[in-house]
Amino acid sequence: MIEVIPFINANKEKYIDELKDFLKIPSISTLPEYKDAINSAADFVAKKLKAAGISRINIFKTEGHPIVYGEWLGAPGKPTVLIYGHYDVQPVDPIELWNHPPFDPFIKDNKIYARGATDDKGQLYMHIKSVEAYFKTRGSLPLNVKFLIEGEEEIGSENLEKFINDNTELLKCDSVLISDTELYEAGLPTLTYGLRGLAYMEVELTGPSQDLHSGSFGGAVANPINVLAEMITKLHDKNGKITVPHFYNNVKRLTKKEKNNYKRLKFSDKRLARELGVKELYGEKGFTTLERLWARPTLDCNGIFGGFTGKGAKTIIPSMATAKISMRLVPDQDPKKIIKEFTKYVKKLAPKSVSIIVRELHSAFPVLTPLGDKAAVAASVAMEKAFGKKTVYVRDGGSVPIVTVFTKKLKAPTVLMGMGLNSENLHSPNEHFDLNHFHLGIISSAYFMEEYSL
Amino acid sequence: MIEVIPFINANKEKYIDELKDFLKIPSISTLPEYKDAINSAADFVAKKLKAAGISRINIFKTEGHPIVYGEWLGAPGKPTVLIYGHYDVQPVDPIELWNHPPFDPFIKDNKIYARGATDDKGQLYMHIKSVEAYFKTRGSLPLNVKFLIEGEEEIGSENLEKFINDNTELLKCDSVLISDTELYEAGLPTLTYGLRGLAYMEVELTGPSQDLHSGSFGGAVANPINVLAEMITKLHDKNGKITVPHFYNNVKRLTKKEKNNYKRLKFSDKRLARELGVKELYGEKGFTTLERLWARPTLDCNGIFGGFTGKGAKTIIPSMATAKISMRLVPDQDPKKIIKEFTKYVKKLAPKSVSIIVRELHSAFPVLTPLGDKAAVAASVAMEKAFGKKTVYVRDGGSVPIVTVFTKKLKAPTVLMGMGLNSENLHSPNEHFDLNHFHLGIISSAYFMEEYSL
Repeated sequence: MIEVIPFINANKEKYIDELKDFLKIPSISTLPEYKDAINSAADFVAKKLKAAGISRINIFKTEGHPIVYGEWLGAPGKPTVLIYGHYDVQPVDPIELWNHPPFDPFIKDNKIYARGATDDKGQLYMHIKSVEAYFKTRGSLPLNVKFLIEGEEEIGSENLEKFINDNTELLKCDSVLISDTELYEAGLPTLTYGLRGLAYMEVELTGPSQDLHSGSFGGAVANPINVLAEMITKLHDKNGKITVPHFYNNVKRLTKKEKNNYKRLKFSDKRLARELGVKELYGEKGFTTLERLWARPTLDCNGIFGGFTGKGAKTIIPSMATAKISMRLVPDQDPKKIIKEFTKYVKKLAPKSVSIIVRELHSAFPVLTPLGDKAAVAASVAMEKAFGKKTVYVRDGGSVPIVTVFTKKLKAPTVLMGMGLNSENLHSPNEHFDLNHFHLGIISSAYFMEEYSL
Repeated sequence: MIEVIPFINANKEKYIDELKDFLKIPSISTLPEYKDAINSAADFVAKKLKAAGISRINIFKTEGHPIVYGEWLGAPGKPTVLIYGHYDVQPVDPIELWNHPPFDPFIKDNKIYARGATDDKGQLYMHIKSVEAYFKTRGSLPLNVKFLIEGEEEIGSENLEKFINDNTELLKCDSVLISDTELYEAGLPTLTYGLRGLAYMEVELTGPSQDLHSGSFGGAVANPINVLAEMITKLHDKNGKITVPHFYNNVKRLTKKEKNNYKRLKFSDKRLARELGVKELYGEKGFTTLERLWARPTLDCNGIFGGFTGKGAKTIIPSMATAKISMRLVPDQDPKKIIKEFTKYVKKLAPKSVSIIVRELHSAFPVLTPLGDKAAVAASVAMEKAFGKKTVYVRDGGSVPIVTVFTKKLKAPTVLMGMGLNSENLHSPNEHFDLNHFHLGIISSAYFMEEYSL
């Protein structure tokens, strides 16, 4: 690695200038008027891949935004890593809260401010630069690489999912490498090895066929709001456990090693409570907060509405009440099974006095990369070398649906080697990316290729 | 009564024509553009009172709509009855659902169709005509009469309440007579002797200081919707009893006589369930539906909202959740005390993980006129004579706040001798009034005056 790392170090400023060019392209995927910018961003990625030394490059048209694919398979007998990223970005509203225009990249305190800086242009660009460093110094990569860079991550990756389903042979790989997550704290190398899944439901109760006068009829009929409240209450027991039958059947228990890993992280309940503006944290008994966030399933009402919701008083018994209820799932819960059990259970909970409709709105599988997986170990060692610190192992409470597709369709484990920070305003005004992490990310990527090839 | 009743019978058609003139005036109290009509309606009432023989008439200006007052105190030693009614009406929207213009009275199947027909122009006009019949036949009334006709009933009677407070001497009386309620069924004389009170509250919970990503934070914080649901659930026990401490302390038990009265009414749970579109009725255990509706307090959520209420899925843990919760009260519950107990209780129910605000939005005292009260007995006998059937005794589950003011300020019992029907579309398109009941109402009013004077 003697030539590669010094080369990266020597080109630090050049990489930043290139990233600036990338960040200048307003590739907002959700707004049709940015269609040209979307295409420019795809072209930019393809051009930079080519310049880096990737031989075969294709821009695949889709019904939506193009997918950039590139591969270099010149290391027979060596593993193949598929590097995923996205060139599309979130909208910039509310624009007035930006201290500097979102598509005019601007550096302050060694952070680069622009929409897409950390999510995900800055992070995906790290891998293009590490590949380039290999080609420019050694003329080859230590392993086989496939790039899969999409333009619809911020709008659901619908066309990418189709593309993966249709191209499993092309995309065949031993592991997937993604940099689109966060470091546990600045300067601390972090491997995210688990994501929660999701089962998002809507429960609609109907009592009387229309709103009733609560004076004339209060006492005669079941009130759908009261009934819904009771049903929601029954979804948890007094220890905060979810009561849906068979819900925990496939929940993987935390290993001792994982528990110890979490204990080593400087996590403070008090600090989190203060940040969120609550007097105390709350959750399932018997688990620490990090365990609850990362390795335990949850059930939350995301919304509720029924009856009169305006200002003041209206004396009605409502005809209907609706709740949006979602469950975050953990390995090895299957969202399809959970949705079935949930639906059966809430229908059973509903008394005869109301009718009930249960809708499935959205779902995603949970993801867990075994810590002993070769690619995960390689990423961990690579980051340790780059950062000069021991890598910490975390999970993320959210879901990244596309990772499930990789797992299911490509049968490949995913390594989440993110270099962002939670505080970097993803999806908000003044998004930024720490340039130190950008640089260490390129080095980590380079080390990863070597480690994984061994 | 020989002269009075035949006189009323002989003038039946003339009364209907006069009522038509009254109904032509679009005296919608809530819409400022009908201010002239409001004044015309007040003038109409004053003019008709004068024509009927009422000597002293005053139209009192208020900050809102005028109050028409009239009195005839020519029967010293005899009781004084205060007759209350209102000349204002509800808006007519949705106008397209009317089969005939709302202010162009129209008779079909012996029913008069117009806004205000049953609520309350037709009903208040009955008393003006019975008074007139006395003066035209006997030259005097058998008792002292005061008329108090307001124009703000449909918008809360705010100025009437002030007026009563300021004029207790002027309004002094032995009983209040109101025709603004319903017959239990067509042709069945009905005395409404009880009204429920009200305590209308709003409970607002705040958890985290802003909406949180349910993936990143699900499992760490109490969810205000889930907490609110649990609190609402705790407000009832499994028998449908309200758990607010001391809630039932002052609830008057039904007498045997009342229970027997209710049993005699042809009430069908099945029919009501069908009418309301529910599979089964529901309420506090141990009481019949009529008992629950009329003589038992209830607690209902009138509205609930929190989090994401749009279409589709948004994965948030909401910062806030709000419920509108009202209690219907029965004699002798005191809304002020109930509000205090409720507030204390829900604050106790709220866990430390949320902050809570409890607001009082509205309240009204329950009302109960003793069945043995002289005016109630007179009304009962009067209706029996007019209808040729035994009077039934009912309560109403709703509240009529102004009745409380009469009870508290004038210390007079209120007799609710209504001639409307629940099916006459009060507040809805195609409001109407059965002209047979209009006629029997005039006769009932005439008999009442004689009976009450004895």
